[in-house]
Amino acid sequence: MPRESSTAPPADVVPPISRGGRGIRLIRQYLGDRPPGLEETTLTARDRGPRTAAGRLWRQGKRVLIGRPIPSTQAAQERLTRVKALAVLSSDAISSVAYGPEAALLVLSAAGAGALVLNLPISAAIALLLVIVTFSYRQTIFAYPSGGGSYIVASENLGRIPGLVAASALLIDYVLTVAVSVASGVAALASAVPALGDQLVPIGLACIALLAIGNLRGVRESGALFAAPTYLFILSLLALVGVGLVRVLVFHDPAATGAPREPVARGETVGVLLVLKAFSSGCTAMTGIEAVSNGVPAFNPPESRNAATTMLWMSGILGTLFVGIVVLFYAYGLVPDPTGNPTLLSQLTEQVVGRSWFYYLVQGATLLVLVLAANTSYADFPRLSAILARDNFAPHLFGFRGDRLAFSVGIIVLSILAAVLLVLFRGSVDALIPLFAVGVFVAFTLSQAGMVVHWRRLRGARWRAKATINGLGAVAAATVALVAGGTKFISGEPLFQVAGFDVRAGSWIVIVLIPLIILNFLGIHRHYTRAADELAVETPLSPEAIKHVVIVPIGAVNRLAIQTLAYACSIATNVSAVYVSDVPEEMAQLHQTWRAQRVHHAFLDRVSLRLVRSPYRSLIPALMSYIDDVDQRQPSSTITVVLPELVPAHWWEQPLHTQTALRLKAALLFRPGTVVTSVPYHLERELPPGQEQLR
Amino acid sequence: MPRESSTAPPADVVPPISRGGRGIRLIRQYLGDRPPGLEETTLTARDRGPRTAAGRLWRQGKRVLIGRPIPSTQAAQERLTRVKALAVLSSDAISSVAYGPEAALLVLSAAGAGALVLNLPISAAIALLLVIVTFSYRQTIFAYPSGGGSYIVASENLGRIPGLVAASALLIDYVLTVAVSVASGVAALASAVPALGDQLVPIGLACIALLAIGNLRGVRESGALFAAPTYLFILSLLALVGVGLVRVLVFHDPAATGAPREPVARGETVGVLLVLKAFSSGCTAMTGIEAVSNGVPAFNPPESRNAATTMLWMSGILGTLFVGIVVLFYAYGLVPDPTGNPTLLSQLTEQVVGRSWFYYLVQGATLLVLVLAANTSYADFPRLSAILARDNFAPHLFGFRGDRLAFSVGIIVLSILAAVLLVLFRGSVDALIPLFAVGVFVAFTLSQAGMVVHWRRLRGARWRAKATINGLGAVAAATVALVAGGTKFISGEPLFQVAGFDVRAGSWIVIVLIPLIILNFLGIHRHYTRAADELAVETPLSPEAIKHVVIVPIGAVNRLAIQTLAYACSIATNVSAVYVSDVPEEMAQLHQTWRAQRVHHAFLDRVSLRLVRSPYRSLIPALMSYIDDVDQRQPSSTITVVLPELVPAHWWEQPLHTQTALRLKAALLFRPGTVVTSVPYHLERELPPGQEQLR
Repeated sequence: MPRESSTAPPADVVPPISRGGRGIRLIRQYLGDRPPGLEETTLTARDRGPRTAAGRLWRQGKRVLIGRPIPSTQAAQERLTRVKALAVLSSDAISSVAYGPEAALLVLSAAGAGALVLNLPISAAIALLLVIVTFSYRQTIFAYPSGGGSYIVASENLGRIPGLVAASALLIDYVLTVAVSVASGVAALASAVPALGDQLVPIGLACIALLAIGNLRGVRESGALFAAPTYLFILSLLALVGVGLVRVLVFHDPAATGAPREPVARGETVGVLLVLKAFSSGCTAMTGIEAVSNGVPAFNPPESRNAATTMLWMSGILGTLFVGIVVLFYAYGLVPDPTGNPTLLSQLTEQVVGRSWFYYLVQGATLLVLVLAANTSYADFPRLSAILARDNFAPHLFGFRGDRLAFSVGIIVLSILAAVLLVLFRGSVDALIPLFAVGVFVAFTLSQAGMVVHWRRLRGARWRAKATINGLGAVAAATVALVAGGTKFISGEPLFQVAGFDVRAGSWIVIVLIPLIILNFLGIHRHYTRAADELAVETPLSPEAIKHVVIVPIGAVNRLAIQTLAYACSIATNVSAVYVSDVPEEMAQLHQTWRAQRVHHAFLDRVSLRLVRSPYRSLIPALMSYIDDVDQRQPSSTITVVLPELVPAHWWEQPLHTQTALRLKAALLFRPGTVVTSVPYHLERELPPGQEQLR
Repeated sequence: MPRESSTAPPADVVPPISRGGRGIRLIRQYLGDRPPGLEETTLTARDRGPRTAAGRLWRQGKRVLIGRPIPSTQAAQERLTRVKALAVLSSDAISSVAYGPEAALLVLSAAGAGALVLNLPISAAIALLLVIVTFSYRQTIFAYPSGGGSYIVASENLGRIPGLVAASALLIDYVLTVAVSVASGVAALASAVPALGDQLVPIGLACIALLAIGNLRGVRESGALFAAPTYLFILSLLALVGVGLVRVLVFHDPAATGAPREPVARGETVGVLLVLKAFSSGCTAMTGIEAVSNGVPAFNPPESRNAATTMLWMSGILGTLFVGIVVLFYAYGLVPDPTGNPTLLSQLTEQVVGRSWFYYLVQGATLLVLVLAANTSYADFPRLSAILARDNFAPHLFGFRGDRLAFSVGIIVLSILAAVLLVLFRGSVDALIPLFAVGVFVAFTLSQAGMVVHWRRLRGARWRAKATINGLGAVAAATVALVAGGTKFISGEPLFQVAGFDVRAGSWIVIVLIPLIILNFLGIHRHYTRAADELAVETPLSPEAIKHVVIVPIGAVNRLAIQTLAYACSIATNVSAVYVSDVPEEMAQLHQTWRAQRVHHAFLDRVSLRLVRSPYRSLIPALMSYIDDVDQRQPSSTITVVLPELVPAHWWEQPLHTQTALRLKAALLFRPGTVVTSVPYHLERELPPGQEQLR
């Protein structure tokens, strides 16, 4: 029975066949019922390694960078305690306090000092939103214990297109998370070490390269690795907020007057638009909050309960830090530097504790936690791409696990996109923020709306209450998405010029990208579906029905050509040799050699020799037109072009040969229904005795 | 008889076979005696053009840049009158006066004003050398009426290695001629238009690109094209020298005092070494003088007589201009500018005629004639490379004529090398000069020495006198080569730094390159000889002796796989299908589908199914190790790997498929004796009815 093969194969049932023990091990023979003539065998292949010097070099380099391959059987996932899970899953959300509050203040500061106080009510609204979204997602955790990503929830409950909208918004979000987190982390570093201030982009690219290599190596979301930096960040920021609040409220720090410490440019007037812009910028502090509900299966049992508790803790910490930081920013009258250097958090830390060891601890922890936040996307983007590939919406390549079990293609694509963003936006967090909120809150909205449909469909206990909570979450998230999309449609510095016209960043990029990505998803899906339909076997095929016409292009009558013709004659009877030239003397010369060789090789009598004159010296078009002609005369036959292929012993000898076979193969690939056979002749290799025949 | 095919084929003996008249035209059937079963046909192929959009775009671009293809039959060469020949063949030599005299003076000026007078005796010596070399080459013209290039003369008379020394020296010389002539022409332009002074390299690269395109289009050495600029240059320079001498000698121009017009840096002392350096720099004025003896067959009959007369005229003009310019440089006390801008010739012209229209005429003519001089190398380098390719010393690609009958590879290689030189030496003539003389005079020496052996072997009338003249030429040329190689071994500005060590240009580059190039020539020759020996047919082959083992890797049991298996069963009986996976469930699933399909496709009973487990998910290494295993068990069989190949209808759909077939083909290319067959399945193409079978 075939199902037997799913059990672990007993090792070394049959001893290795191949000499030196480097071959295939035969581990199970004769699977299931065997009709006469059908031999079925399960073998386990061993990799014998690359055969060429270049191949070995490539593998060595890959091994050093990525590590040795890991077998598929080690794909088990680590289960997390609540303490570890908080570290692993919350770095993205909690690290957002490093850029969210500053982004809101930067918007307000454009309207002068008086506008800064508005950050307090705006932040209160954001905190309220955080509570709503937290309780919304808490319900998702219980409803989808196997992991409720926005794509899955939206697809299952709202249908294919909303699911794809969520997926594309998430993919954009993941790329932006990497770019924003890395840029923000580098800004924290540059605040502490001002000399690095003009090297933001190279340092950011180096971070992305490290993340890519680490993830290609298959850095597991190891609790131990994540715990230290995340808790260091949480504790040092809690301490900072605590000390700051004590100084302001208890000791009435004279520096904490609430008045701006620097003159503030007054470009815009305070209005609804400005407030909404500041609100949507501040909402970026909530990005990453969905991570816990995606990662439920990673928790120790009871998974949902542990995840829900962790979610509450995470939101509590995030809210505390966010509100505390906002209040302290206001109390100390801090104003964001338009260049983003030093960061506002750096200014605050310096204000509260001076340039002490603690200042450097906070900056270092900020850098580390932001790199971990970027790393979260390195887990999510490849995983979502792989799910999309499985559902035939993304190229199947995204679903392949590399040597180290990581989804290599997704990791590489994510790195390239994030690097492009970083270069394009010159490593500036402020420039990237306007793009950030839209994608995140579109995904939130669809996920929460999906949950409403979910409860309504199930109609379980208290379904109305649950649906109301998720509905509230959906409305809140939709509001943010609309505000962010609308108020920041065009925003920020010009990125580049096209025909004298400044192209400025803004949420329009995301709003344009989402439908384009969805069209791509649908196109890919259609292609795979059609291909699968077409390949579904229908008409019975029979080898006997194939009529062969075999064409062998030759460049001379030598061993290479005669070996190839012998092969051709061994597979079919209707064989012709084709010689192309522009020089009549060459054609006559070849014809003479041909007749001479017929004496030694009797089988050449069975081969038709065709001399094709190519007036423009071109070889490939002449052969192609010959093949077309044969095709038109014998339309029901299968044409096989058998190519003699001279393979030099060393790669550096390749330029000495004219690669005709290679070019002809490329040309024939696009000729429907033409079978191409390469008969290689390897130069200057010793042949074992008795293997002269074609070896 | 095969010889018949060398006559021009009568067009349209048989009407076109193919529909639409776009096929092959059958122009002669049944060549020679035909044994039963052997059909021999001469056909003339018509190019139907590329089939893909990318191919059509490439061809359109090539047509615009290079022009429409020219048939081989139009390869006839233009015959030249003496007047035209002088223009075509002397531009290289005569244009050398634009840089030779200046190069000598630049060396002398390093020793202060007093040293400048030494240029007069040095130039007298160069003029004497010119006379000797001219009479030497005049004898070559008569001895080699079919063209006596240094490579041919040295190979025939001195042997293979001296011939290859000459060839490598000439190839280097041709590259340097392009670089020096273009740099010098650009310097003439920059002297007239000082604003271009900092754009020397880009302008030079543009010139090289134009020369490359022009020659790929097949610019013939058309007399009409060459005559105007060359004669303009000759006449305007003769007029300049004449007017200058009259002003100095007859009117006693007060400016012509012989005293340097500018303070001269005094870095070196006058000594033998300095004089020899100046001499070898000045000798670059003689480069290109061998062109006439190479081009004898291009003359109107009597070829040798006409060529000899032209040679005398050319040398006379070159000598007159050279001596006249040197005398005027001295009379007006001109000192070369170390930057090479303005050129000395520009200074002289300004001195004699002011910044008049005549000044601009001279500068313009100088630019044009120098570009023509560079163009001479564009004829010579590809021609010599093609001769070397014919003799198996250079890759055969150099011998292929492109669409326009030009040796495309040689033209492209020459352009790249000259462009690299120009960039490396920052477009400076003075920096390039030290490399220039060595190669030229090594080739001269070998050519003249070869002539001595030639006369000695023939022992014809007055052979001793002839041998003496060539011997004198050889000794003189060898002296220059030694002087140039020795005194300028290291010379000039640092090119770049390697590990803190300045790498300076100098003749050492050429002296190191010549043996390296020769080693390359010999290595290539050995490779081709071995390949030809190996391919010489010896043991009789027979198709019946081939035992087939056919392996078909499959990814699923679908139409693609079943079609491929049907093909495999139609060419051999021993066929196995191989499926690789790391998931036991997938293997069981495939096995089930396989058994289901056996009901519809009876021939599958003849196929062995092999399930190979690949623990590291890698496909190619697993298949390779399976093939190795089969090979070891059946060492006397020929393994054919038949690959199902899914070809999408559009190129942009390629990334959606995993290119397994392509990667496997690349891996199998390096596996000796493995035949690889691709059975394509073209997706989403309408199939004509009745062609379901494999089409």
